[in-house]
Amino acid sequence: MAAQTVGDLGEIAIVERILGAVGPLPGVPVGPGDDAAVLACADGRLVVTTDMLVEGRHFRRDWSEAADIGHKAAAENLADVAAMGAKPTALVVALALPPETEIAWVDGFLAGLLEEAGRAGAVLAGGDLVRGDAITIGVTAFGDLGGRAPILRSGAEAGDVVAVCGTLGSAAGGLAVLSRGFRSPRALVDAHRRPLPDYPAGVRASDAGAHALMDVSDGLLLDADRMARASGVAIDIQSEALPRDEAVVTTASAYNLDPLTWILGGGDDHALLATFPPGSRLPEGFVAVGTVLDAVGSGARVRVDGHEVDQVTGFEHFRA
Amino acid sequence: MAAQTVGDLGEIAIVERILGAVGPLPGVPVGPGDDAAVLACADGRLVVTTDMLVEGRHFRRDWSEAADIGHKAAAENLADVAAMGAKPTALVVALALPPETEIAWVDGFLAGLLEEAGRAGAVLAGGDLVRGDAITIGVTAFGDLGGRAPILRSGAEAGDVVAVCGTLGSAAGGLAVLSRGFRSPRALVDAHRRPLPDYPAGVRASDAGAHALMDVSDGLLLDADRMARASGVAIDIQSEALPRDEAVVTTASAYNLDPLTWILGGGDDHALLATFPPGSRLPEGFVAVGTVLDAVGSGARVRVDGHEVDQVTGFEHFRA
Repeated sequence: MAAQTVGDLGEIAIVERILGAVGPLPGVPVGPGDDAAVLACADGRLVVTTDMLVEGRHFRRDWSEAADIGHKAAAENLADVAAMGAKPTALVVALALPPETEIAWVDGFLAGLLEEAGRAGAVLAGGDLVRGDAITIGVTAFGDLGGRAPILRSGAEAGDVVAVCGTLGSAAGGLAVLSRGFRSPRALVDAHRRPLPDYPAGVRASDAGAHALMDVSDGLLLDADRMARASGVAIDIQSEALPRDEAVVTTASAYNLDPLTWILGGGDDHALLATFPPGSRLPEGFVAVGTVLDAVGSGARVRVDGHEVDQVTGFEHFRA
Repeated sequence: MAAQTVGDLGEIAIVERILGAVGPLPGVPVGPGDDAAVLACADGRLVVTTDMLVEGRHFRRDWSEAADIGHKAAAENLADVAAMGAKPTALVVALALPPETEIAWVDGFLAGLLEEAGRAGAVLAGGDLVRGDAITIGVTAFGDLGGRAPILRSGAEAGDVVAVCGTLGSAAGGLAVLSRGFRSPRALVDAHRRPLPDYPAGVRASDAGAHALMDVSDGLLLDADRMARASGVAIDIQSEALPRDEAVVTTASAYNLDPLTWILGGGDDHALLATFPPGSRLPEGFVAVGTVLDAVGSGARVRVDGHEVDQVTGFEHFRA
């Protein structure tokens, strides 16, 4: 018997199936199923971020299970919420599916999405389901600042300590492994399939007085360059201080690559990049990796060990 | 000289171009350009809705200008906000574009989107830009209840007056015209390309004591059926009372169609469907078109002139 597809079941039945899986949502004034949801925001402000993931571009069904893709779609948006110094609270998801998509894929996707949302403390509050030729996932995620000021990427000041929280290069290593047709080291492949952002680290950074904070999604160098430009400063990274995951180092070496290629250029781990006032006691999970300097003329905004880098690598859509 | 494309310019330059067009946003704590936006919600609640539009499915570039598509993407989401009895305030947009998309198309899309958002009183507060094979637009829109209770589709009560605000069938007529290779009547084609929801009608319905309210996006019969099911009632529509746009009537007749096919079955006009307590003075723009009845067993939830209709027509994704 052929597996049941989205086209077999139809939009209305699938939406009912999803609503059943989501269940009632305590604390959400109006959940999924009406024209719109109504979210509580006792703080008087709501953090909002949106990202789109396209099959073949941001994920491949032969490399990632449905649940992995659901995890990743939730994680990359919820990480952006944390990167404002906020606590994730909810997300809404718009999904374009080819009619031949199996219902089992939709179930798996939803399970992964709900699991990662739950890990972040967020609920699925609404969505949309349409037909498309490629699976396309639009996630909008929300967060609560709890009375704190949002921590922007533009707040870095000369003299600040630059710090990161989380692994760097693991997801890029996993992508390289999969691109070569391998499935191990498992730690790297898993890092690509299911990034596991440390969501509470955003609030910890805020509480520790971070001047600037952002999600590293396109590679440390590219994102540090964005932070430096937004703040009108320069950033010097000390390569010795960067966290070096053992699997990243050994796998890169096996491929005759400098591990820094992945550590400095690889995105998708969703580490946090922060700057703290000099002398700060860094919050749990953060390690100092550099220093904020005054910008000098039109020179490079980001340096590694005091040297200009040939190019700011990292992921840019349309160009990569 | 070939027109400049998205692939020529690259993500970062396009995002900067968009940020320039949007400009500063008074009243928005954090606008576009950081990991996330921060929206004000003085009410302590925020209305949230999301929709995805896929090229070839929800719009065609040979039938609609870029600005029309921007208008429509904004309108269909902002209409859902109004349909909760809320005032639209903001939206965020995720956009997947093929690299060969002309920059002029992006500019036109953005101009149309900003114009329609402005008509609703909403600002563009953030977004995402990625590469895809088909233009895909994910919009999430926000609204302010201003202390009012949200008006749900589940609130209809037996005895209520059923009312609609806005035209019915014009967008379906426009689609039929375009499908036959014509470009007129212009009023219908324009209605398909640029639905013009009466956004303040949502708040007017709320202030007039509406029991139930929803956006008619998939056809009056299908959406009335959804309202009836959500409310546990039946709805009887009086066909004589339905607003009949002259272009809808004459064009349907020219195509040997009963105009009710479009009026009852056509979506995308984004009229509002509401129920009010019996004896209510209907707010401006609303006309009475039927009555809410007790549900009887498992019979039809929606009737026209007291008769069960053969099928609840309307747009269902994957099936249409």
